Amino acid sequence: MTLLISDPQVAAALDAPATVDAMRRALLAAYDGRLVAPPRAAAPLGGGRMVLTAGHLTGRWYGYRSYDTFGHPGAEQVVVLHDGQTGAVRAVAVGEELGSRRTGGLGGVAVDALARPDAGTLGVIGAGGQAWTQVWAAAAVRPLREVTVFSRSAARRTAFADRVRAELGVPARAVDTARAAVRDRDVVVLATTSPTPVLDAADLAPGTHVNAVGFKQRDRAEFGTDLLDAAAVLVTDSPAQAGAYVPPMLAAEAPYASRLRDLGAVLAGAAPGRTDADQVSVFCSVGLAGTEVFLLDQVVRALAPAVPT
Amino acid sequence: MTLLISDPQVAAALDAPATVDAMRRALLAAYDGRLVAPPRAAAPLGGGRMVLTAGHLTGRWYGYRSYDTFGHPGAEQVVVLHDGQTGAVRAVAVGEELGSRRTGGLGGVAVDALARPDAGTLGVIGAGGQAWTQVWAAAAVRPLREVTVFSRSAARRTAFADRVRAELGVPARAVDTARAAVRDRDVVVLATTSPTPVLDAADLAPGTHVNAVGFKQRDRAEFGTDLLDAAAVLVTDSPAQAGAYVPPMLAAEAPYASRLRDLGAVLAGAAPGRTDADQVSVFCSVGLAGTEVFLLDQVVRALAPAVPT
Repeated sequence: MTLLISDPQVAAALDAPATVDAMRRALLAAYDGRLVAPPRAAAPLGGGRMVLTAGHLTGRWYGYRSYDTFGHPGAEQVVVLHDGQTGAVRAVAVGEELGSRRTGGLGGVAVDALARPDAGTLGVIGAGGQAWTQVWAAAAVRPLREVTVFSRSAARRTAFADRVRAELGVPARAVDTARAAVRDRDVVVLATTSPTPVLDAADLAPGTHVNAVGFKQRDRAEFGTDLLDAAAVLVTDSPAQAGAYVPPMLAAEAPYASRLRDLGAVLAGAAPGRTDADQVSVFCSVGLAGTEVFLLDQVVRALAPAVPT
Repeated sequence: MTLLISDPQVAAALDAPATVDAMRRALLAAYDGRLVAPPRAAAPLGGGRMVLTAGHLTGRWYGYRSYDTFGHPGAEQVVVLHDGQTGAVRAVAVGEELGSRRTGGLGGVAVDALARPDAGTLGVIGAGGQAWTQVWAAAAVRPLREVTVFSRSAARRTAFADRVRAELGVPARAVDTARAAVRDRDVVVLATTSPTPVLDAADLAPGTHVNAVGFKQRDRAEFGTDLLDAAAVLVTDSPAQAGAYVPPMLAAEAPYASRLRDLGAVLAGAAPGRTDADQVSVFCSVGLAGTEVFLLDQVVRALAPAVPT
């Protein structure tokens, strides 16, 4: 019997700590080979593509997320969870919550692993859904003292700051420039739709950790190579996916590729993370495949605790 | 609001005439470019692949079917139907019925277009689900007088003949050899899992139409090139997909590729079908992409007739 899962059910089952914890386990599973997470597959459909990101937690489940690139206003994503033993479809989720929460959750793991232990201030450029889940997850791993936010729309950045105060209980200010948002911050989030740099790395304080969520490719990136040059620690959630971008991801090209580390390896202690309080660390978020299915499995367990785990 | 559709709902909504009619419209839409149906995309998952066959009926809907190649006993397929205007997910079907019915329906269209108008006898090699839907659909387009069936399992071929009599009301006999099943038949269906030829083309009577549903690739085919040599009319439901097989499809290689016609073009009158009662015609079924979504759209309309079409 297949469960049809809606966004409100996802939201009820996955708070930020649970989401970050699940994504930490997913990254470790990918690192040690239990979670098979290949680069995405796509079918061209004339005017848009149907894209599949699949995953397989060996012996437990397999499945995928699908989304499209038509740009329709009410586009919904689908996540499918198959039982790993029988092949039956245990659940299908329709909506946006799994996708946005998993990206936020991965960002939360990166902040927890790479930001300074005493990090308490966060600056965010961008005020959309991706920006929100990054802050939502970061607040679960560090006791934030203040959030500053910039986006081009004054109304949206003000609303974002209001939401941070209301939902996360963290003091928050909308500011007039990107520079003002990121200056003297312990953690910086880039979560825009900009194809050109929105950040000057010279504005970052020593010791800042950056989560980069938006475009990060050659000739289409919300940051420039100045950020990568400044980064003493450069990490991604999937080196395989990072290497499969077309056009290439900046951090997956020379001279950065040789320094790009797997967040899962950092979590496992197999690669160094931050080794000095003054280092700038950068997390290039690519969205490890299979992680939406990982979260859907968590939702199904939360809904039906009697299901054998 | 997404509908979750089960196999019994599909079965109730799609009888053989409705299915064949829908597949005829799908083939015509693919031929005239309204139905975009690219070759399949796949993601390797370690021990199996997750496969996506997508389709887009311009301005109406887009979506896909997913299935996997793990070989689990209870594996279920998923078909997703997006609204073409909003991107919302109108319906998700879980199960096998859409996939098997659409393959049967495409076979029914081929029989209707290519078999002699007076065809009344059908021989089938294979007694599984694919064999069944081929006969089920053929009976909707020709008044069958007799069905003969061979498979290696005596119990299965006898059960198949019983089912033809019971469900289709057509006289049916299980026979001991493939030759006995196909000799002097107007229509022959090959629907086995055999990687080696199960048919000797010399056993076919002049004027026979053949639907080939199983393996049809180089070094892995349920028929040999003798069948393609005998075919005066050689047709497939998707020349693009036929050309994308790895290893190559026999009928998509020289010297056959130049003669391989699009069933949609035949339906549209843009390519010749059978021009002589004595010709052998062969339909190489590849499963035009998007056709499961086409059928799911039909099911949704049948369930909610008030939905604007």
